[in-house]
Amino acid sequence: MPVVGSHAVDVRLRVRYAETDQMGIVYHANYLVWMEIGRVEYCRAAGIVYRDMERDDGVLLTVVEASCRFLAPAFYDDEVTVRTWVEDANPRMLRFGYEMLEHAANRRLATGETKHFFCNRERKPIKLPDKYRAAFGIDK
Amino acid sequence: MPVVGSHAVDVRLRVRYAETDQMGIVYHANYLVWMEIGRVEYCRAAGIVYRDMERDDGVLLTVVEASCRFLAPAFYDDEVTVRTWVEDANPRMLRFGYEMLEHAANRRLATGETKHFFCNRERKPIKLPDKYRAAFGIDK
Amino acid sequence: MPVVGSHAVDVRLRVRYAETDQMGIVYHANYLVWMEIGRVEYCRAAGIVYRDMERDDGVLLTVVEASCRFLAPAFYDDEVTVRTWVEDANPRMLRFGYEMLEHAANRRLATGETKHFFCNRERKPIKLPDKYRAAFGIDK
Amino acid sequence: MPVVGSHAVDVRLRVRYAETDQMGIVYHANYLVWMEIGRVEYCRAAGIVYRDMERDDGVLLTVVEASCRFLAPAFYDDEVTVRTWVEDANPRMLRFGYEMLEHAANRRLATGETKHFFCNRERKPIKLPDKYRAAFGIDK
Repeated sequence: MPVVGSHAVDVRLRVRYAETDQMGIVYHANYLVWMEIGRVEYCRAAGIVYRDMERDDGVLLTVVEASCRFLAPAFYDDEVTVRTWVEDANPRMLRFGYEMLEHAANRRLATGETKHFFCNRERKPIKLPDKYRAAFGIDK
Repeated sequence: MPVVGSHAVDVRLRVRYAETDQMGIVYHANYLVWMEIGRVEYCRAAGIVYRDMERDDGVLLTVVEASCRFLAPAFYDDEVTVRTWVEDANPRMLRFGYEMLEHAANRRLATGETKHFFCNRERKPIKLPDKYRAAFGIDK
Repeated sequence: MPVVGSHAVDVRLRVRYAETDQMGIVYHANYLVWMEIGRVEYCRAAGIVYRDMERDDGVLLTVVEASCRFLAPAFYDDEVTVRTWVEDANPRMLRFGYEMLEHAANRRLATGETKHFFCNRERKPIKLPDKYRAAFGIDK
Repeated sequence: MPVVGSHAVDVRLRVRYAETDQMGIVYHANYLVWMEIGRVEYCRAAGIVYRDMERDDGVLLTVVEASCRFLAPAFYDDEVTVRTWVEDANPRMLRFGYEMLEHAANRRLATGETKHFFCNRERKPIKLPDKYRAAFGIDK
């Protein structure tokens, strides 16, 4: 759950046939793709277009850790809400938390976490430029 | 690293173009797919064809947790070794550990872990049938 | 382009980071996934929830042919419209046509086609049940 | 089938769980990924490491058309042979043909074709440098 004081951003997606496997449920690795969608929309809601940050300023958000707990299966054509919030942030590192919910029955599907370093185009760690810090709640 | 007393199974794969992203490296969610390949080959080396276990005996290995630490990027056409071992196992639960290594330069790419429940075809938790236990080092 | 007399259904999606490759554009196989999304929404607009047709009536829409022409690259975070229409249909076979357009600049990204057989749960060809025919413009 | 006078290159792969869908078979878009693996190995057998051609000489093989006929389903853990050959080639364009076969029962799974332009790093069409032509049977 989002920590007190932070806010969370929701994005809705629909499960694709391609995302299912022969167990009849969503293949687990797709949840990491959904988390990526979640944090991109978190950024957009905070005023940052990740595409522009990467292309124009050469700031990349590399993934250094990812984890997920799968609580209930997701099915083809389900509408899923990905809820994303910042768990921790400083000029060098960012950690997102996630919750995935099935919309119709309000089932909790999964929780997850990713840790990132800010990097330049050569994928070397850098400090996040000042102009982007407020969006992630980092003091200048 | 594999715990003392256990053994690890290696499988080699080559990075596909489809697995890269616009950062020029392997997209991180693919490591979970590689871990799936690793544990299937672990099973095969231990005498279990996972396909048959699932199809013939209706024993499914559902994923309940997955985590990965990304240590160094993998690149297109790299040959990657996925090393897999059992970290913990009992008749209801199985935990695999993984290490991913780039073959040519012997770079350590990532480490990971997945936790599984044994389930029936309706994805309800079951106890692993006796005949499969030895393969995972579970006492009967 | 949709043939005279038929109608087309549009669905919008946003390009995921996971869908790009190291060329910096969308990896071509993802267009087939987008076409799947297009035909599912075509069905929904025609009053058929494909999930229910498959689950409740055991009618599967297997893919027997697929083709795509790639006209212009799609980029990460682009908003893409998938336009889908029925090119040909009879009780045993269905052919969809597709056009993919980048929304902001109205660029035509690709055109495609898929051919399908109606099948039962054992993936054997069947005739489409009457109640579903009108949705695809098939005379009873 | 390969045209008279040309040769074909085979590569073997094993179906991943991630590649299946809830129909219990390989999701069709994955065949395009397999064809990519096929043409990379065709190049390697012809003395060209595609990675180096792209990285060192900035020659990209963009996909402009792709098509596939699905003849029989592929299943999880199947061993699949992808057979690749050059159907047509000139200094600006290359067309590959493919056949996918299930190894154990020698079932023919699919046939396919892809058409490519040689491009520079900006994805503008170029003529293939002389040194690479022989590999594709293009006269200098």
